[in-house]
Amino acid sequence: MKIGIVGAGQLAQMLALAAIPIGIEVLCLAEDNTKPAATVTDIFIGELNSPQKLHEFAEHVDVITYENENIPVDAIRSLAEIVPVYPSIKALQTTQDRLLEKQLFDRLNIPTVKYAAIDSMADLQQASEHIGLPAVLKTRRFGYDGKGQYRLANEDDCQSAWKTLGEHPLIFENFIAFETEVSLISARDQLGNTHYYPLIENMHKDGILRLSYAPWQNNTLQAQAERYAQRLLDELDYIGVMTIEFFVVNNQLLANEIAPRVHNSGHWTINGAATSQFENHVRAISNLALGQTGCLAPSAMINMIGELNDRDEVLKIPNAHFYDYAKSPRPNRKLGHINLVDHDKKRLQASIDKIQTIKC
Amino acid sequence: MKIGIVGAGQLAQMLALAAIPIGIEVLCLAEDNTKPAATVTDIFIGELNSPQKLHEFAEHVDVITYENENIPVDAIRSLAEIVPVYPSIKALQTTQDRLLEKQLFDRLNIPTVKYAAIDSMADLQQASEHIGLPAVLKTRRFGYDGKGQYRLANEDDCQSAWKTLGEHPLIFENFIAFETEVSLISARDQLGNTHYYPLIENMHKDGILRLSYAPWQNNTLQAQAERYAQRLLDELDYIGVMTIEFFVVNNQLLANEIAPRVHNSGHWTINGAATSQFENHVRAISNLALGQTGCLAPSAMINMIGELNDRDEVLKIPNAHFYDYAKSPRPNRKLGHINLVDHDKKRLQASIDKIQTIKC
Repeated sequence: MKIGIVGAGQLAQMLALAAIPIGIEVLCLAEDNTKPAATVTDIFIGELNSPQKLHEFAEHVDVITYENENIPVDAIRSLAEIVPVYPSIKALQTTQDRLLEKQLFDRLNIPTVKYAAIDSMADLQQASEHIGLPAVLKTRRFGYDGKGQYRLANEDDCQSAWKTLGEHPLIFENFIAFETEVSLISARDQLGNTHYYPLIENMHKDGILRLSYAPWQNNTLQAQAERYAQRLLDELDYIGVMTIEFFVVNNQLLANEIAPRVHNSGHWTINGAATSQFENHVRAISNLALGQTGCLAPSAMINMIGELNDRDEVLKIPNAHFYDYAKSPRPNRKLGHINLVDHDKKRLQASIDKIQTIKC
Repeated sequence: MKIGIVGAGQLAQMLALAAIPIGIEVLCLAEDNTKPAATVTDIFIGELNSPQKLHEFAEHVDVITYENENIPVDAIRSLAEIVPVYPSIKALQTTQDRLLEKQLFDRLNIPTVKYAAIDSMADLQQASEHIGLPAVLKTRRFGYDGKGQYRLANEDDCQSAWKTLGEHPLIFENFIAFETEVSLISARDQLGNTHYYPLIENMHKDGILRLSYAPWQNNTLQAQAERYAQRLLDELDYIGVMTIEFFVVNNQLLANEIAPRVHNSGHWTINGAATSQFENHVRAISNLALGQTGCLAPSAMINMIGELNDRDEVLKIPNAHFYDYAKSPRPNRKLGHINLVDHDKKRLQASIDKIQTIKC
């Protein structure tokens, strides 16, 4: 069995690290072989706009997955003519467009924020009046880590927001003063069996995830999140790992967005869950049964952004594990993460605090 | 930082899988690139009897370790002239010779079985009389998985045992009707800090490890084993992971042998311990601090020998993880292992039982 991964970033690297011990080979498609996954597996060099290269890549593998939803659907469709591609093209199409995603939430009775499609300045003015401000104007596609977003505090902001983003199809979203943000990572196998990880609490800064903590214990909302996920997985004929981000408002979940893949907020599962999100994605797309998804112990994940923290110092924290994606430093770039696992929650919190003091 | 590993078998593969995420590169020295570690890292092709190749290999890396103690000390010594080699040459020399190992146990007041060096049929007759039968005659060097051993039930066996093994330097060991066998895996970093995993209970068949279970809970013997390990680690100027196998007799530990490396009985640590034995070995030899060594949950490891069990069926057991070393099948060859981790010990035992029923 050989898996093809479109992309060769850190998610592809961690998928490969999970696949190889099971005896599953991996080949990544990327424009060059300097990417994180090249540290661990072979790279098939090619571009997504080359039908010839896509064809060759697909011929080398038994099943294909992707590490990023911001890729051309046409390219994935041409791969899917040769070998199975998971998650489904329907999942990819929906999740790469914030408007389609919100419309799907509506159709499946999954609460979400108030929103409106924006294609003109008139649309924007109308939405500001009907939905109200503050709000966030976002590009419908290709946004990540807070990119392609503009906060609208008052009417005056609309003009400059339109100037900045108006060339793209946009979505207007009501600004939510949420209590916290959580994510649910699910996995669905080829027989339709589903497994859910415990809810994860996520802390962002400047639109970029900084810290995740699991389990976020709330039995009512865990059950609620799983019901929502089940509807989405079934509707999208989903195979593999899927992540939903939620806002928590008045002890209710409001779905924010879906990632059709393993997710940054699930990196702690490598050390802290019975089966990592990466192993479960590999198992699902390879038509193997899923592994257990419970926490072995309370866990946290801290992103290293722009610069890596001093590895020697981090590893002096006895419950810490260090992940270096082998990427060159750049402002706001995710270069690695730290996992922390400890049965003792106080010691876990002390380790989280300690990491804030470690120099880069 | 780049680690060189002498050997490219499954232990090298699992060391590489632990090193790469930390941002540590790996290069394995092997005679060809068909070995398990080739699935995950580069192989430097060369033989241990080529001084030229050894020199070139050492020039490519920052530190060297080995996955097997049955290698020529001279080769390791020539590598150590260029870069640090861990564990120490003293550890390698001692642990590749059962007689030196037993003499070290004696010197450090670590109880072991009665033994005698055997260099002639006369020595063998004398040992049979003084130490008594039943006993086991073993080659002093190059024995593994029960190879190079002959059981002596009575006087008549001595002649045929001598015919079979007499060309090698031998050791005569009193046969012990032990209650069980346990192993202690330790790690010592470059500052001399030591960490100990919980004792592991090991079940062998035909001299080959079949099943390991951790933790084997016995506070008295855990403390005793750690005291013995501490003496050995200090005496051998040890850096890295070291394993001691013990017989348990009358609730006492009798040291059987030392492995200067990560050990088959510790493979469960990948899924069941706070830090795997592989990660801790990599951290120790790379001059990083050690990670915690406790169990996250009760764990077991089952070797797949001669044939792999059916992967699809094994992974239907929800707490199972499957490891395929990418080796060709051969009788008595270790081809992979299954790890099982579960907070619920009854469910863990049920999974162990279930695996016995899965076809190869």
